[in-house]
Amino acid sequence: MTENPRRRRGRGAPPQKSRTTNYRNLRNPFPLMAVFSDDRIAAIHDASLEVLERLGIKVLLPEARAQFKAGGARVDDSTEMVHIGRDMVEAALATAPKSFPLIAGNRDRDLVMELGSMIFQPGAGCPHATDLERGRRPSTEQDFRELITLTQHYDVLHMIPPLVEPQDVPIHLRHYAMTKGQMELTDKLPFIFSRGTGQVEESFEMLRDFRGLSDQDFAAQSHCYTIINTNSPRQLDIPMALGVMDFARHGQMAIITPFTLMGAMAPITVAGAMTLSHAEALAAITLGQLVNPGAPVCYGTFTSNVDMKSGAPVFGTPEHFKASLAAGQLARHIGLPWRCASGSAANLGDVQAANETQFGTWGCLLAGATVTLHAAGWLEGGLTISYEKLVTDVEVLQMMAELCTATAANADEIALGALEEVQPGGHFFGAGHTMERYATEFYEPVVADFANFGTWQERGSVDATTRATGIWQGILRDFTPPTTDGDRIDALHKYIADKTAAGGCAPVS
Amino acid sequence: MTENPRRRRGRGAPPQKSRTTNYRNLRNPFPLMAVFSDDRIAAIHDASLEVLERLGIKVLLPEARAQFKAGGARVDDSTEMVHIGRDMVEAALATAPKSFPLIAGNRDRDLVMELGSMIFQPGAGCPHATDLERGRRPSTEQDFRELITLTQHYDVLHMIPPLVEPQDVPIHLRHYAMTKGQMELTDKLPFIFSRGTGQVEESFEMLRDFRGLSDQDFAAQSHCYTIINTNSPRQLDIPMALGVMDFARHGQMAIITPFTLMGAMAPITVAGAMTLSHAEALAAITLGQLVNPGAPVCYGTFTSNVDMKSGAPVFGTPEHFKASLAAGQLARHIGLPWRCASGSAANLGDVQAANETQFGTWGCLLAGATVTLHAAGWLEGGLTISYEKLVTDVEVLQMMAELCTATAANADEIALGALEEVQPGGHFFGAGHTMERYATEFYEPVVADFANFGTWQERGSVDATTRATGIWQGILRDFTPPTTDGDRIDALHKYIADKTAAGGCAPVS
Repeated sequence: MTENPRRRRGRGAPPQKSRTTNYRNLRNPFPLMAVFSDDRIAAIHDASLEVLERLGIKVLLPEARAQFKAGGARVDDSTEMVHIGRDMVEAALATAPKSFPLIAGNRDRDLVMELGSMIFQPGAGCPHATDLERGRRPSTEQDFRELITLTQHYDVLHMIPPLVEPQDVPIHLRHYAMTKGQMELTDKLPFIFSRGTGQVEESFEMLRDFRGLSDQDFAAQSHCYTIINTNSPRQLDIPMALGVMDFARHGQMAIITPFTLMGAMAPITVAGAMTLSHAEALAAITLGQLVNPGAPVCYGTFTSNVDMKSGAPVFGTPEHFKASLAAGQLARHIGLPWRCASGSAANLGDVQAANETQFGTWGCLLAGATVTLHAAGWLEGGLTISYEKLVTDVEVLQMMAELCTATAANADEIALGALEEVQPGGHFFGAGHTMERYATEFYEPVVADFANFGTWQERGSVDATTRATGIWQGILRDFTPPTTDGDRIDALHKYIADKTAAGGCAPVS
Repeated sequence: MTENPRRRRGRGAPPQKSRTTNYRNLRNPFPLMAVFSDDRIAAIHDASLEVLERLGIKVLLPEARAQFKAGGARVDDSTEMVHIGRDMVEAALATAPKSFPLIAGNRDRDLVMELGSMIFQPGAGCPHATDLERGRRPSTEQDFRELITLTQHYDVLHMIPPLVEPQDVPIHLRHYAMTKGQMELTDKLPFIFSRGTGQVEESFEMLRDFRGLSDQDFAAQSHCYTIINTNSPRQLDIPMALGVMDFARHGQMAIITPFTLMGAMAPITVAGAMTLSHAEALAAITLGQLVNPGAPVCYGTFTSNVDMKSGAPVFGTPEHFKASLAAGQLARHIGLPWRCASGSAANLGDVQAANETQFGTWGCLLAGATVTLHAAGWLEGGLTISYEKLVTDVEVLQMMAELCTATAANADEIALGALEEVQPGGHFFGAGHTMERYATEFYEPVVADFANFGTWQERGSVDATTRATGIWQGILRDFTPPTTDGDRIDALHKYIADKTAAGGCAPVS
């Protein structure tokens, strides 16, 4: 038994040339997994249509009910219930685009929304931020800007989510701060909250002017996106309905994501929760397509379970994994690009958190998710984002992205020459075949430490999370924002100053 | 945006009935992934045959060379080189069984070795053990016995590996201590080191008598196993060759595992390393089949890479993952059950360690590994096993095992009744459909803590690794060994006492 690698430790050598990676525009290389047979998926789809048609969905926004009614739905304004016929849903699925581009500030950051794309986003929507230097605190504009910077830094993070709530900015001015942060610090696809038409249209205006686009050019392609969470079960609230309509009207992508925790706001079974999630997603997709047939839309789900002992939401569980698989099957059933999510319920960036997030992310990948949200940094079921966990999760995402690269097995790689050159019991460190490739053959980690125990101890026995602190600090310190026309920055600042002076714009609730 | 689960937190309720799990006899539920096209796999197989035929393999044991020669190989005793024709390899692959049982002490623990089975083992072969209470230390018999106890405790760990070296036991007596520990503390399939015919035959004798088997019954099925690591590149040393022959002669399973680190003892490319690994595995399989055609044998590989800056072996990397995929394709090409391995190079059970082990294990599962070794607890590339990491990795393995269970999506699970019962914006905590299922529907974690931040803080802000300490301590404290005939224990003790008094049995090197 000689399975002890350290005995084999050979000499190292300084790299000659550096390795290039391409973590943009990834295609999912993983085989897709099913949790249900195709006939059960058809049954769930059918049950969802029955939910919409017979049970109905409560739509709180009168204009949305009117839109549904005009499209042929049975609407009761006294109960706010909308009953959507399956023909309406089928018509919407026929006009919803199966593939469309997302236009970033830097066109090299553009993405293609379609089945087969593999897009990662860090954690989103957190009211707290935490790091080892400053501890856990209510999140601020500074946190938001720092986390945009980290997201911009890593190519494997493809879109900007609403990482944290900048809670030190009043809510009637918050959309200015969030747009400003994204315009100044990143050239990736920006996010806009759906908190009423006023804020949304101001955000569109800032973005459009910053990008130098005409109204028509802006509306022709998706330059930003929003996330629509239904109020499960079976309810679409006012800001969310407004968001569906506003984004559809302007040709910008809405990601429709019912947030359906099994046993809480959804049935306790995977099939039941997915029936509800699917029904709600189809309702919102239908609304958007009624407003603007062909508007870009992303199907989505975020279905996990609760801990039935405490009622707490949990993530990265086997049930979460199965729900992701079911959602992927449903997405393929209707042919739309779709969003899934990873995450963790842990209270700090420990081994539980690492394991839950990686497990949840594998569920998304084997489900064939187009977009995987909350793939880095998300703790406490979304109450906190951790700077260090963002870095350690990025390591995993990069390793997954490495698997997208084709690996050759031609004569050069099979290397019979090297196998002949190295004698039995010898080693390949010095072989020509090795020397040609050693600087570029292997993935280079972000945070993993490969030193042996003695060296690691001499260096202070630092764990990965603590090493991650130095990494995010270095990124923030050395960061160069993407090049932008200074006049546009000035114009944006002036716009915000004027609007602020005029009283800002309150969100709708 | 309402993607904040805590706002949705509902009431909990005490469980009514407990959940039953079955983590024994798992079948791999995951879709299999390929890294190379079928024609490249055929090319690697063919190149491996050329390595064996033209370049040859150095075999240090004269009896093994004689066996190869008798089987038709070209042998040069002066250089110890053996050139194995492809016809010999093909004949061996024709007699090696594609499916066979492994007989445990408790027949409920029997396993089926074939493609499609999914068998996990904790980390093996470590010269150190570590835990948060006692720190890192050279491993002892006590560690070995404690780690067997933990392995016995978790159903998701299916076989006993040589967890640690009991270094406080002299090497000429160590096989007694290892057999004694396994007989007294576990009814899962035991492991025997191949350290010479003397130790192996004494271990067989102890096991056979302890199980109350005749020589014939013992030889008819595999009641234990060994692991054969070739001395890559292209060398089979004396104890390993003896092991292949001893285990084949007695009808016990040898797991053939070349340990081929890309860039060190193997070519730096995945294809080159796998060509070497495959060749060496085929050589050892051929030797065993020459000794006893039809003897149970497990194909294997343990191919990862080294960090080219330091020469250190690393695990759970993208290259390790790709090599696992290639090995799975080669195993299916020859149709044999096979062993793969996970692991971690981290120096403590931190987030790096968790991520590497889970990543490596996913590589094994998507590769369709029959047996995944080092799936729990393995640190420092095998220099240390961690009690806490064993527990936290078991959590991941159990979550993977949960995915083996079929999930229904019939009318009961689609739950239209519950969807109708719960009104828009309401919740399912109190629904009849939930109440019937809440105590049994979801996976119950080993170590994950789902408390909210405040509660978790009140309880002392304990991380998962620290919680794992209490868990392994509890298992050791409450452990009940499997029931065994006291006379057999006494007989084993007497055998060992007599052999020890007679001087023991030195290993062969």
